[in-house]
Amino acid sequence: MIEIDYILHGDYLVTMSDDSSPIIDGAVAVKNGKIVDIGIYTDLNKKYAPLEIINGGIIMPGLINTHCHAAMVYFRGYADDLHLLDWLEKYIWPAERKWLSNEFVTDAVELAVLEMLCAGITTYSDMYFYQGAAAKSVKKLGIRAVLASGVIDFPTKTTKCAQDCIDNAVRFIKDFKDEPMISPSIALHSPYTCCPDTYIKSKEASVNHNVLLQTHLSETQWEVDEILKRYGRRPVEHLDYYNILDSNVLASHCVWLDDKEIDIVAKAETGVSHCINSNLKLASGIARVPEMLNKGINVALGTDGAASNNNLDILNEMSIAARLHKAIVKDSSALKAKEALRMATINGARALGLSEKIGSIEKGKSADIIIGSITKPHLVPIYDIYSHIVYSMSSADIDTVMVDGKVLIRVGHLANGADVEIIEKANHWGRRIAESV
Amino acid sequence: MIEIDYILHGDYLVTMSDDSSPIIDGAVAVKNGKIVDIGIYTDLNKKYAPLEIINGGIIMPGLINTHCHAAMVYFRGYADDLHLLDWLEKYIWPAERKWLSNEFVTDAVELAVLEMLCAGITTYSDMYFYQGAAAKSVKKLGIRAVLASGVIDFPTKTTKCAQDCIDNAVRFIKDFKDEPMISPSIALHSPYTCCPDTYIKSKEASVNHNVLLQTHLSETQWEVDEILKRYGRRPVEHLDYYNILDSNVLASHCVWLDDKEIDIVAKAETGVSHCINSNLKLASGIARVPEMLNKGINVALGTDGAASNNNLDILNEMSIAARLHKAIVKDSSALKAKEALRMATINGARALGLSEKIGSIEKGKSADIIIGSITKPHLVPIYDIYSHIVYSMSSADIDTVMVDGKVLIRVGHLANGADVEIIEKANHWGRRIAESV
Repeated sequence: MIEIDYILHGDYLVTMSDDSSPIIDGAVAVKNGKIVDIGIYTDLNKKYAPLEIINGGIIMPGLINTHCHAAMVYFRGYADDLHLLDWLEKYIWPAERKWLSNEFVTDAVELAVLEMLCAGITTYSDMYFYQGAAAKSVKKLGIRAVLASGVIDFPTKTTKCAQDCIDNAVRFIKDFKDEPMISPSIALHSPYTCCPDTYIKSKEASVNHNVLLQTHLSETQWEVDEILKRYGRRPVEHLDYYNILDSNVLASHCVWLDDKEIDIVAKAETGVSHCINSNLKLASGIARVPEMLNKGINVALGTDGAASNNNLDILNEMSIAARLHKAIVKDSSALKAKEALRMATINGARALGLSEKIGSIEKGKSADIIIGSITKPHLVPIYDIYSHIVYSMSSADIDTVMVDGKVLIRVGHLANGADVEIIEKANHWGRRIAESV
Repeated sequence: MIEIDYILHGDYLVTMSDDSSPIIDGAVAVKNGKIVDIGIYTDLNKKYAPLEIINGGIIMPGLINTHCHAAMVYFRGYADDLHLLDWLEKYIWPAERKWLSNEFVTDAVELAVLEMLCAGITTYSDMYFYQGAAAKSVKKLGIRAVLASGVIDFPTKTTKCAQDCIDNAVRFIKDFKDEPMISPSIALHSPYTCCPDTYIKSKEASVNHNVLLQTHLSETQWEVDEILKRYGRRPVEHLDYYNILDSNVLASHCVWLDDKEIDIVAKAETGVSHCINSNLKLASGIARVPEMLNKGINVALGTDGAASNNNLDILNEMSIAARLHKAIVKDSSALKAKEALRMATINGARALGLSEKIGSIEKGKSADIIIGSITKPHLVPIYDIYSHIVYSMSSADIDTVMVDGKVLIRVGHLANGADVEIIEKANHWGRRIAESV
């Protein structure tokens, strides 16, 4: 008998590796943070002596949130049902100017990470400021994160110009490049807030330090019109013209791509983060996801910030995407359940450049694994496990969440019981923010 | 001190009555199934001696599901991601022919009602066959229901022609018209499966027995083309021509209404059941909900059957509708949170002709009330309670469900503990159905 840390045992094991079907009564063996074996439970049970066996319904890879502004979770519900410019100019930007600080970001990210872990998200990619402060909460709670330090031409609370932002980002990258659970990254806000020179310099920094470059791209019709007006090209063409796009770039939103732009993104092998809830709620539009997937683009899912969503819940994004795009392309066989689940798992890992390590349950990969219940009224009977995960499960059905071989969530709560304190802190900040309006 | 059954006490009381704002630290007094008082907790606490005080986060009216085929819950996930005709002709209709029986419907409705109660749905309207068998489970579990006996021109397992269906419906109406928790109703399948004579005779039955007439209407582009071809009029015009539409009619879907048809429905004061998840997943299209609401149409929400959804979850329908229609009409201020919550509560009551009794928390109305948690990571901080319910809450956050003054759900489970047996029965049926494919 081989000594290991855990056997995770489920009625269904959904690996999301390319070559495998779901395993009935399946199990995963975990040791030192890694997946060491996969198979039928009775086989693994004979071979391994685990410190603990965790039983459940569906074992699947941890979900990956490829686009987030985690600290904005403290502005959840702060301003809704407004025109986009009113929302930004009258509410969100003033609130950010007033409240952002290292303390705010550390506390807010703690709540965001708790929410994501409870929803089965084991890796998230963030685009914001004060990422050093965010990293504290990431390390404290044990989630895996890609933290991108933001770059924008406008002055911010802590920067005067884009070069300050880039310098900050490079400093952050150097400080965090050896953290095992954090991949530092650099993020340009958008083509309408960053000039070509800022894109070129940020790209250089990302290449020099071998980190992911992220950017919002073609989120609104307004952005397309504005970039056309300024540069005579549509947003994707514009970035392509400056050789920004390649497989080490993650572009979020990509709502308003024309055929030519879809071809450019496909050829560049640039990943796309599809943020459907945010795009709907802000009335930005609906990205051409089935067409992008058909062209071979790696489309993953993102929640965007909770101020425009208002949750950090990839199962929910997946479920809405899988339904909505059928109606948009008028084909109820479009974006099938398994493909939607791929977007939430392995596509996310690829988009973040982490698919060697996470995104599927395979021997040698990190043990980022979640277990969902199948004993609730909305989850029976079961005919097809992919359909079940995509169209019937909700994040509240996730019982157990393991990241890097550590069990962080048990029965829907932090294994160390710290949830209550994080929620109280959030309510305390919420009252301060509400009272100051 | 006045003796009563319950005080329900919440951090927020959301009544959904026309004239009231949310009450902070609010309470509802309940006696003999009725709401006898509403106010601030400290006031009610001085005045009443309840048998029990139930505390929670958000107290709100029970949700209303205005369109369902409850028994189809046993086909949840049985066939997905297929073209509509393949789905119907190769899977759903053969499965129904094979399996439908009184026993199947009684058992399946039990699961559907359990799922709906857990999701905070206190009233649902159903359109199916074997409604006598459904009524058994409705009475057993204690939900409020509008049960419509189906009418279709085709032969079914138990009927040879439409007149058989109408006779069945009239018999069902007579048998159940005095049941306090069941409103019998008559439901025509659709203009493409029921000829004008069937509509006229069903309408007569609904008028003679003073029950709600229900019909699917204008669900797909195909239906519009077909009705135009057969009768030279679009579906709504067609029914209007035969004087079918009035305020005692509930039309489900209404996806493909043109301007003139919207005006007809508005003028007739016919209620509309918007089934967004089903319409998306079957690629039927997206109803013009903001325009219908602007024209004064009473639009409520429906889940449709779990075979095309795949849940029976009105909070989820509401949340998707509130986001999606913003993107469709390109206005992030469209379909505001409070209006979306109205669709899920008081509009539903009006659509079913039950607004004197349910749909809001008001003195004299039946105590159909739900309590939601606000202590989970995705539910803090709180700035606006309507935004919170619509954009952040999920059905798993509903702790307590009271119907007609009886507490049916406590801490997310049937108060009598019968969930386990219902779920086991569903899995047993599911295995039989799966094995027979």
